[in-house]
Amino acid sequence: MNLFRKTLQEVRPIDPLWIESARRRQLELTKPPGSLGRLEEIANRCVAMRESLALTANRPRIVLFAADHGVCAEGVSPYPQEVTAQMVLNFLGGGAAINALARSGGIELKVVDVGVATPLPVSSDLISRRAAPGTRNFSKEPAMTEAEMTAALETGIELASDSAMAGCDLLGFGEMGIGNTTSASAITAALTREPTEAVIGCGTGADDACMARKRLAIERALALHAASLGDPLGILRCVGGLEIAAMCGFCLGAAAHRIPVVTDGFIATAAAALAIRICPASSGYVIASHKSVEPGHMHLLAMLEGAPLLDLEMRLGEATGAALAMKIIQAAIAAFTQMATFATAGVSNK
Amino acid sequence: MNLFRKTLQEVRPIDPLWIESARRRQLELTKPPGSLGRLEEIANRCVAMRESLALTANRPRIVLFAADHGVCAEGVSPYPQEVTAQMVLNFLGGGAAINALARSGGIELKVVDVGVATPLPVSSDLISRRAAPGTRNFSKEPAMTEAEMTAALETGIELASDSAMAGCDLLGFGEMGIGNTTSASAITAALTREPTEAVIGCGTGADDACMARKRLAIERALALHAASLGDPLGILRCVGGLEIAAMCGFCLGAAAHRIPVVTDGFIATAAAALAIRICPASSGYVIASHKSVEPGHMHLLAMLEGAPLLDLEMRLGEATGAALAMKIIQAAIAAFTQMATFATAGVSNK
Repeated sequence: MNLFRKTLQEVRPIDPLWIESARRRQLELTKPPGSLGRLEEIANRCVAMRESLALTANRPRIVLFAADHGVCAEGVSPYPQEVTAQMVLNFLGGGAAINALARSGGIELKVVDVGVATPLPVSSDLISRRAAPGTRNFSKEPAMTEAEMTAALETGIELASDSAMAGCDLLGFGEMGIGNTTSASAITAALTREPTEAVIGCGTGADDACMARKRLAIERALALHAASLGDPLGILRCVGGLEIAAMCGFCLGAAAHRIPVVTDGFIATAAAALAIRICPASSGYVIASHKSVEPGHMHLLAMLEGAPLLDLEMRLGEATGAALAMKIIQAAIAAFTQMATFATAGVSNK
Repeated sequence: MNLFRKTLQEVRPIDPLWIESARRRQLELTKPPGSLGRLEEIANRCVAMRESLALTANRPRIVLFAADHGVCAEGVSPYPQEVTAQMVLNFLGGGAAINALARSGGIELKVVDVGVATPLPVSSDLISRRAAPGTRNFSKEPAMTEAEMTAALETGIELASDSAMAGCDLLGFGEMGIGNTTSASAITAALTREPTEAVIGCGTGADDACMARKRLAIERALALHAASLGDPLGILRCVGGLEIAAMCGFCLGAAAHRIPVVTDGFIATAAAALAIRICPASSGYVIASHKSVEPGHMHLLAMLEGAPLLDLEMRLGEATGAALAMKIIQAAIAAFTQMATFATAGVSNK
């Protein structure tokens, strides 16, 4: 049995009895009941994931997956495809937004090449797991072969397992891949049956002509691959991306290891939604970080458990939303584990 | 001239030319224009506050002001008044929610007694600036004398000045005071002319009978002090609190020192709204942290510049919302100051 199938069998849904234990503990802490709002909800859910009241969040890690998209040939992005590789170099040099946010938040950052088209120099800071030199143009043929998709899924699973081995207790993920909002929009249309116009947005800043090409590419792809879009793995293989497959595997791997895993924006959430459709038991482990301004995002967020924590009008990707939400989650866990009780602090309860 | 009047004269509005300089710099950074959303807005505003592109946020500090409220005699809170002092001891012992959140976020915390009714032990961790042993019952007489109010306002100003002297570059504030949602509701009604029922909520968890007493106390106070409620200092003196006066002074002091200052929930925002009404030039320096579930909060938030950063359904106070928002602001500043430009990173622009 391959790693992917084995991982699916390892994921167990979170147990509502643990949520109840956490709720009872929250009532003992020196605050009016429920007054920490969503911080309590998140801490309680983490208790159920970890099956322990002794939560920690001392080893947060973000894994950033980069890959290219054949559909760029249709002129769907205002940026040239080379920018994917250039931005990977920027990640390695520490100059991208996610570098600043991860440093600011004390979060470890790992960068993975799952299939960047432009060759990248060998670097000890870059994890090279190339399943293919980018996807094929999915408006003309399936984005990936079965073997490429499985390799990318298993890369994600392995990165989650490596993180578990390293003692990470809070995981986030994100992506870089010029053209990947087009892939995420196609996935969203296929998963939710929403019309294409409801799930496309300007991505990194597409103009009207670019948007029209994006829409056409998606509609052609949905028609071409219609027979394969009935199941999530068919959707992923036909209109997905290598980094999207890897992020999907990362969610499944984190769930198998019972580690909270935090989404990012539209593209990362497409991967999380696929993971949940593939393995509904994983849904309790996935925490929605933020609502981006991409119109399709809200349709995907509706498939996740719990509303996104943040709405800061961001649309950058790179796990920038995950990095911010992880600080909120760490705070939620700190309050849950470090607060005094009414009894120990000698504070009068109602 | 006293410190309060002197401080008002020192506050200069932020200069929109600095916002423009910050916007131009944002366009050079390796991200699609505007893609960090509200993080860019906040960093740009901080540039205008500091009058420098070389922002820092390495020395964040929260000041927590505690005081008691005479209006508790009307039975407006489900908790006994002694809880104010008990919670101050909990802050000093490190067991309250704000202790956990400040530790988790690497934020320094200072606790100030501006007028807790129950005597507190002398402690090197507690800053004692008692203007009175709590306010008077404002449903029967003004909450403070002019002298008490000025002392509390100046305590806040002095705490901001001390923070500036210590090199703090990001400030937050919050409060503890049983009964103080009643004061904040009265302030909100007086400032916004909204009817009492639109500005009261359950606070720390009031039941229907408690809510009815709260509403009656506020309506009696608004009628009794009607002649004094035309100006913000009259509102503060008649229906405010010592900790609210201190937080108001803290906002003004931070603005005078050109330091970003982050609100907390309903009561802290009432203090910020008073500061802005007293000194409109201060508004650019006040950053709204979160939207609490108290119904009156949104009416006060409308008086501040910029929407709140977070909505996590919190209603605890203690600067817990400020602590979370300060992490977002630090991230915004990190991105602005640490990101590479398209030119230096060799990334193709559109």
